[in-house]
Amino acid sequence: MQTVSFIGSGNLAWHLAPALDNVGYSVREVYSKNPKQAAALVGRLYQAHVNISLDFSASTSKIFIVAVTDDVIEEVVQKLIVPDDAIVVHTSGSQPLSVLNDAGTENTGVFYPLQTFSKAKKISFKEIPIFVESESTDVEKVLLKMAKALSGKVKRITSEERKALHVSAVFASNFSNHMLTVARAVADQHGLDFDLLKPLIAETLNKSLEIGPHKAQTGPAVREDFEILESHMEFLKETPELAEIYKVVSQHIIDTHSD
Amino acid sequence: MQTVSFIGSGNLAWHLAPALDNVGYSVREVYSKNPKQAAALVGRLYQAHVNISLDFSASTSKIFIVAVTDDVIEEVVQKLIVPDDAIVVHTSGSQPLSVLNDAGTENTGVFYPLQTFSKAKKISFKEIPIFVESESTDVEKVLLKMAKALSGKVKRITSEERKALHVSAVFASNFSNHMLTVARAVADQHGLDFDLLKPLIAETLNKSLEIGPHKAQTGPAVREDFEILESHMEFLKETPELAEIYKVVSQHIIDTHSD
Repeated sequence: MQTVSFIGSGNLAWHLAPALDNVGYSVREVYSKNPKQAAALVGRLYQAHVNISLDFSASTSKIFIVAVTDDVIEEVVQKLIVPDDAIVVHTSGSQPLSVLNDAGTENTGVFYPLQTFSKAKKISFKEIPIFVESESTDVEKVLLKMAKALSGKVKRITSEERKALHVSAVFASNFSNHMLTVARAVADQHGLDFDLLKPLIAETLNKSLEIGPHKAQTGPAVREDFEILESHMEFLKETPELAEIYKVVSQHIIDTHSD
Repeated sequence: MQTVSFIGSGNLAWHLAPALDNVGYSVREVYSKNPKQAAALVGRLYQAHVNISLDFSASTSKIFIVAVTDDVIEEVVQKLIVPDDAIVVHTSGSQPLSVLNDAGTENTGVFYPLQTFSKAKKISFKEIPIFVESESTDVEKVLLKMAKALSGKVKRITSEERKALHVSAVFASNFSNHMLTVARAVADQHGLDFDLLKPLIAETLNKSLEIGPHKAQTGPAVREDFEILESHMEFLKETPELAEIYKVVSQHIIDTHSD
């Protein structure tokens, strides 16, 4: 049985560790800078205990999954001590493989599940694409096997492709969500219930996923209805930062849809 | 039985006319500048026929629904001839009531279902918010009754509120969809299958509708991870129009999430 340890107990580890436990991997240790959180995650696992430091030299685990926020991966890895022949991976969409250079092993890789995770929300890994990267064929084999145990959508990927994927995901997920935040702010400002917009949002996104976003585009910009575009800009003049977003995005819709 | 005629046979009329037929309203005539399309819509109705011109002086209908694209409403209404005491409404989120000033009747109003419609996609009006506006209490009463026959979410609204709602809907629907178009373009440019992003998109939007978009926000901007923001800007330098969107939206995420 392949043995695994987690460094980090955030949203991803919270779901990934039990999922691995359930597909024949055995999670043995969890480290977190927040020991209570590590203990909570251990409570979701069969045979794990809390590792109180980043010293895993006595560990029997083979795979160490560094699932901490992007900006502290390098710092955490510098302090990490793992057994000989261990594999160390990170789970980030944006960080290069090279942030693991100080991992104390050459067996490094990336194990990147492309999804957003919240502790409160149950999620199945079956449909989540997992992207695997390593400079070592042996490590890659181990990671591909682990990914395939979890998901039906596993791909090898280069660092460059992973960066493109991450930029794409920022638009697809972070920015589309922020458009809803802005929509809500506009509704709130005028005493309108944001819930009234939910059926429209759900239908728009369903259609977009079904027929493709380019074909699904509607609204004044794609119709090049400049009268409405101007009246909306006028409407937003008290909130210049929203007017700016409105202008830049509308212009890009016009540009990408003109023949 | 209340009788209705449609001017326009586009996506909204395509769904609204049969929906009215099914809740005790009787659609009698359909006019479209494209007579084939009018005939196709008539084929979906119980007792309707095609009206070949905008002259409805011989019509027995009480309510005339002008469901044409925003920019031609005024022009169409100027040519429209309706019986005395007819009610004329438009269905636009963005046009003021006053575009109906030349309708030949003072019984005018707005009947605005907040949803996106496609001919190929069946849709239920039950959950679609319908917004009603009129300067006449009598007309308002008729329109509220018709709206309530279709939907459980009916609201009276002013022109100013309707404009706010429309601006909000542009962000919520048109702009969020365009973020997916951009995401796809970035993926395509790097030979990545857009389908791999779909689970992330679906989960993000579900979460956003469930816990609210502000709370659901993730990504480098809300984490103020400037290293990644810069590396993404660098990544997008060959497509300055995308870099511009990236910069403007990221900045606004930072601004709206800082304490």
